[in-house]
This record gives sequence, structure tokens and C-alpha cells, in this order.
Amino acid sequence: MVDQDRVDRMRASLRHAKLDALVLRLPENIVMGFGVWPMNGFSYTVFTADDGPVALIAPSCEDEEMGGCWADVRFFTWPRLAMSDPLEAIRNLIGEVARHHKLARARIGYEGSFECVAPSHNAGEVIVPCESSNAFLKSLIPSARWFDATTLLHELRAVKTEQEIARLRLAQRVAGFGLEKFHESVVPGMTEAEIATMVYTACLAQGVRLRQARHVNVYPQVSAGANAERAWRPIVTTGSRRLREGDVALLELGACVDGFWADVTRVKAAGKATSLQRDVFAAVKAAQRTATAAIAPGVEARVPHEAATAVLVKAGFEKYMVHLTGHGLGFSYHEPEPFLMPGNTMKLKVGHVCSVEPGLYGPAFGGIRLEDNVAVTADGVEVLTKTAKTI
Amino acid sequence: MVDQDRVDRMRASLRHAKLDALVLRLPENIVMGFGVWPMNGFSYTVFTADDGPVALIAPSCEDEEMGGCWADVRFFTWPRLAMSDPLEAIRNLIGEVARHHKLARARIGYEGSFECVAPSHNAGEVIVPCESSNAFLKSLIPSARWFDATTLLHELRAVKTEQEIARLRLAQRVAGFGLEKFHESVVPGMTEAEIATMVYTACLAQGVRLRQARHVNVYPQVSAGANAERAWRPIVTTGSRRLREGDVALLELGACVDGFWADVTRVKAAGKATSLQRDVFAAVKAAQRTATAAIAPGVEARVPHEAATAVLVKAGFEKYMVHLTGHGLGFSYHEPEPFLMPGNTMKLKVGHVCSVEPGLYGPAFGGIRLEDNVAVTADGVEVLTKTAKTI
Repeated sequence: MVDQDRVDRMRASLRHAKLDALVLRLPENIVMGFGVWPMNGFSYTVFTADDGPVALIAPSCEDEEMGGCWADVRFFTWPRLAMSDPLEAIRNLIGEVARHHKLARARIGYEGSFECVAPSHNAGEVIVPCESSNAFLKSLIPSARWFDATTLLHELRAVKTEQEIARLRLAQRVAGFGLEKFHESVVPGMTEAEIATMVYTACLAQGVRLRQARHVNVYPQVSAGANAERAWRPIVTTGSRRLREGDVALLELGACVDGFWADVTRVKAAGKATSLQRDVFAAVKAAQRTATAAIAPGVEARVPHEAATAVLVKAGFEKYMVHLTGHGLGFSYHEPEPFLMPGNTMKLKVGHVCSVEPGLYGPAFGGIRLEDNVAVTADGVEVLTKTAKTI
Repeated sequence: MVDQDRVDRMRASLRHAKLDALVLRLPENIVMGFGVWPMNGFSYTVFTADDGPVALIAPSCEDEEMGGCWADVRFFTWPRLAMSDPLEAIRNLIGEVARHHKLARARIGYEGSFECVAPSHNAGEVIVPCESSNAFLKSLIPSARWFDATTLLHELRAVKTEQEIARLRLAQRVAGFGLEKFHESVVPGMTEAEIATMVYTACLAQGVRLRQARHVNVYPQVSAGANAERAWRPIVTTGSRRLREGDVALLELGACVDGFWADVTRVKAAGKATSLQRDVFAAVKAAQRTATAAIAPGVEARVPHEAATAVLVKAGFEKYMVHLTGHGLGFSYHEPEPFLMPGNTMKLKVGHVCSVEPGLYGPAFGGIRLEDNVAVTADGVEVLTKTAKTI
């Protein structure tokens, strides 16, 4: 089903940038433009600024995943022992599209500078644009003028449509299965790895049973005790540490359902939390609530961060603050905007989706962060993450 | 601990290519050159062709992971709210290294064309070279001459050292936990997702307890029945299908331990296999055994494929063959060489590591593939995958 809102925005954005077309191949950008999520990264799409049809060129093994796509989908045979040369097939198909849309002298945008890339379902192997593939791409329409459209794509991605937010709610449901299981599984004697596997199991086994979920990927990381104190690192790491009474466990969970991401965090004490842990938890929870309440269209993105900071400072925990309060997300685990951070005067818009994740890290209590994802709405904010928070 | 064999090979390769240095940032290449595995993709290394020290520049949050590295490790503060500009820190550090090694007019290789990239431990978000980052890199030593070293790096990677093969054995041990669990868990009534989660759980929970394993990533995909018939696709997909008596389940398993990969496959029938399934399984197993026995230094890479094919043809199953017999692997899930495929006259060398994975796919029996990983040794071949094979 076509997301007309998305198509209209993309066309307007292209016209504003004086581009005639975009050629996209990263699954995270194709799922935005076309609603379908390529599995291997060898698909190419041509999206034109005019109102003609747009084309998607995919390997034949992804026929199921491309089902229901509104674009003009062409397949090349791949991968078979007797396959034709896929590059030759792509060359022929793009050439045909270029002739049909008169792109010979067009101004075309491409994905030149995606340095942070979301894995497709085939997460063990990520296919990305590189110098040789960009040169190949440009050789397909050699008389065209090519422009790096990375910034334009990030601007488009930052503001989600209604349909996209509906798909983000599905990713949140899948992540929610893991958050609930996490709360049950944090008890003395469990290891970080055991908890991580229980979260993974809950998300995957329950997630793939949801009617609208085709492909589910789960990225849990659990750190406990002294390890959790280091959970401000960009990647929490799961080890073999066994929880003792009073250890705080922190779950950092990424979940991806057909290209739509959730990025959530919960903490839980094994057994009885200490008085300090409860105080820190209460402050973080209050900071998150206050930051979330500050989110609305027209508000500068620094404001929710400042609101969270004020709560943590007032509680006396300023020195345990390490990181900013939020980042964009949705078509990938993290997206550049909106960053809820000091000095960011960008105004929040309806459709912005971001994390709200205050956290405190200290040797006396471990790492305590709460992370929800929210969408900016006409009358304020929708909290997409529904799971309760207790320590 | 320095892998002197690897260092010597890299220096010889640089001198042969008339390069003075390599600048590497992909974790899969850094783990080859330096033995340590960056977690986030924001590390840079400078490896010089002369005998001076080499430098590794890493974010401060990865101090643990860089522990024991033999290189001159420098850290930049990252990520903290109060952090300095990381690009500025990288610029200063690389500038210092360039002055020390007199690289101002050097010929320097870089990772220009890695189109297939291995995720680091932070698998939900992959950091890769792109046009803007390559431009940044070149601006650090603007008077140097920069050369795309992708082919040189793949050639270096294809032949593993003794130390690297030891680390691949550890990845195989972790994968083996999953293969054993798979054999237990394929029974009527189980779903694909339930089996996948049991494999994940076995690999992760047992893997992180191994003394030498610091970070473990597991990528299982399970397909059953009619879904398994499509398991020749580059990515098998786990769904919610419930196994019925006689369904064959196929496990495609990638496992990564601190940057070293295993890529293995097993199949198992739920309940009693049909007579046809047993015949197909026996043919695939014989084809794998025959292909493996054909592997030795000096043998052309087409030969093991032809040996497997001859077995499958003789058994009457030629029309169910879809894919080639093997590919390189080790620093990533798949590597280009050695490809065991028709027409490949490249000669196998001691230290080559590849998969041996004949498979047959048909509506009457499902998908039946067996995949082991092997290393070419002076007197033939070492099968790295130890788990038994039964249907």
C-alpha cells in the first residue's frame, strides 16, 4: 500500500533540492520510500520527482519480501549457480528506467555518506555503498549529475508519517515482550547472558507470531553490577557475571521489525534495591517524566534535556550524568535528529520520533537508565513504549 | 600479544604494493592487523611498512577491549557530554603519527571498497567508511597519495595465521553449542522461532563462560518444511511455522567471537525422516565428505566443488542443486576467497579457511544442506566444525 504522505514529502523535497531523482539502495532508506525492506542490500530503487511510476530492482530470492510493494518491481536472477551477472542485470534495468524517465541529463541524488548503517534482516553481513559501488552506480547513467543526498535523506527520515508511526508501534510491542521478560528474570543467581537470552527469546518467539510482523531482529545487551556502571558506553556488553543480591541489571534493547526500530532500556535490582538505588531510580524516572512532558511541536530540542537535567541536579546527582537525553530513531537504531541535548535549538515537529533516556552511572549504585521512545504529536507527545518501570 | 607472522605478511604485502602505510578503521580489518576488535567502528589504525611502531586510535570507552594490544594505543575522550570533538582528536593524533613516521608524502592504502561489511559487537548499528569519512581521512595527511587497498586487504585476509586459526577454533566451539542444541530441539510441535532462540541461548550463555571469549554474537536462522526449501536464499528467515512430523528444519548459524566468525549449517527432521529425506541427506553428507577430502594445498578451488557435484549427480539429485560449494570466511561471515565453485582455478594455500556446504532443495523433501568450515593445512585439511551430522 502506497504511503502517499511519504511519497508527497519525498517529491517535494526533491523539487526543493532541484533534484530529478533519487537512487537508493540502503534497506533503511528503501523501507522509507517504498514500505518494503530488502533483505540483502542488493536492491536498487529509482524514485523520481515527477509523478511517473518509480522502480525497484531486487534479487529474485526476495520476491516474497517485495510482495505488495506499490512500485514497479523488477527482479534479477540471484543467487543461483546458473545466474546471470547481477551487475549486468542491474545495469540493464536501471538503463531502461533512465530512458523511460528521461534521466540522461538529470540531477540525481544518492547515498554518499551514510557512515552509521542499519543492518538488514541479514544482520551478520551488511551491504553498504562504497567507492566501487558508487562508481558503478554513476556509470549507469554517465551523463547525469550526481549529488550526495545523505543530508536530504536524514531530514526526510527524521519526520515520520502516520503509517510509519503505526509500524514503529509494532516494533515497540515486540520490544515490550522483552522488557516484561527482563523484569521477571532479574533475580539473584542469574547471569547477564542468561537474562539476555530470555529477552531475545521473548521478543523473537512472540514477535514472529504477530500478524503484521514478517522479519524480527533482536539486539539485547545486559550488564550488571560494576559492568552496569559502564553502561553509558555506546554499546553495553553482555558477559557471564552472575547477579548478587542488590546488583542492578541494565537492559539495552534494540528491536527491528521489518525495518522499523525500537531502542529501549530498563533497569532492575536483583532482590532488594538499596536505598541509594531507589533514590537514583526515582530521580531518573522523574527526569524522564519531566523531559517527556516538555516535548511538543515548536519546542526547541534542548528544552527536554534541560528539563531532565534540572531534575537530576536538584536531586543532587549531577556528577553521575554522562550523556545526552535523547536522539532520533525509527529507520535505524539511532538517527541524527532530534537530538535532545544542550544547545540544540532545532524545533520539534509533529512526526519527530526520539528516545528519552536520562541515566546516572556511579560506583555506589551501578548504572540506572530508563529509555522510552516517543513521537511528537499535534497536541504534545505520544509515549510509544508502554512497559511499566520499577526497580 | 603480537602475531608476528601476520605483521610480517602485512609488511611484505605493503612493500610489494609499494605502499608506505595502511590506515584501517573497519573492525574486521583491525582485528586482523592488531588482534583487538573495536566495538563501535570509530577507531583508526596506522600500520606502516617500515619496522617502526604502529598506532591505534580508539574511543576511551573501549579501553578494556584494547587491553593487551601490542600497538601504540591512544585514546580520545568519547562519548561524554563534555567530550572534546572526536574528529579533532583523531585529526591531532593521526597528524602526530604521520609526522613521527614521515608520512607527509607517503603512499597510503585505505578501505575504499568494502561493500560487504561485518558488524562489530554493536551489531544493531554498523559504522562504515563513506564518502565524507574518506574525504576526512584524506584531509588528515593531505599531501599523501591515497590508494584503495580493498583487494590487498582481502588477499591478506584470505590466508590465516596459526594464531588466527586458533581463534577460529574458539568461534567454532561457540557455534558447536548451538548445533548440539539444534539437534535436541527439532521435534514435532516446536516452531522455527523457538528453535532459533534455543540455539541463540546455548551459544551465548555457554560461549561467554569460555575463558578466552570476551564478546559473543550469535546469528541463528531456522527454516522448516516448505520454508526450508527456500533456504538456498542468502538469508534463511526464521518464522512462526510449527514443525510437523517429517518436516526438515534447517539451521543457518553465524557466530562471532571477538571478531572471528563461524558459518555452519545443520538439518534435522522432526520425528522420523522420510526415505527420500534420508537419501538426500546421505548424498549431501557424502558430497561434503568427498569435497573435503579433495582439499589440499596446490589444488584448484574448482576441484572440491566438482567432487561434490559428481556425488550429487551420481545420486540423481543434480536438478536440486542451487549454489556453489564453499566460500572463504573468518574475519567476516563470508569472504571472497577461496570460492569453491565452477571454473575457479585459484590454487588452495595453507591457511585458507572456507566453508564446505553442499545442499539440495526440493518440494518433496525441503532444504537439506550441511555446512562445515575447514582450514587448509600442510598435509591436507583440518575440519574446524566438530559437531556430528545426523538427520
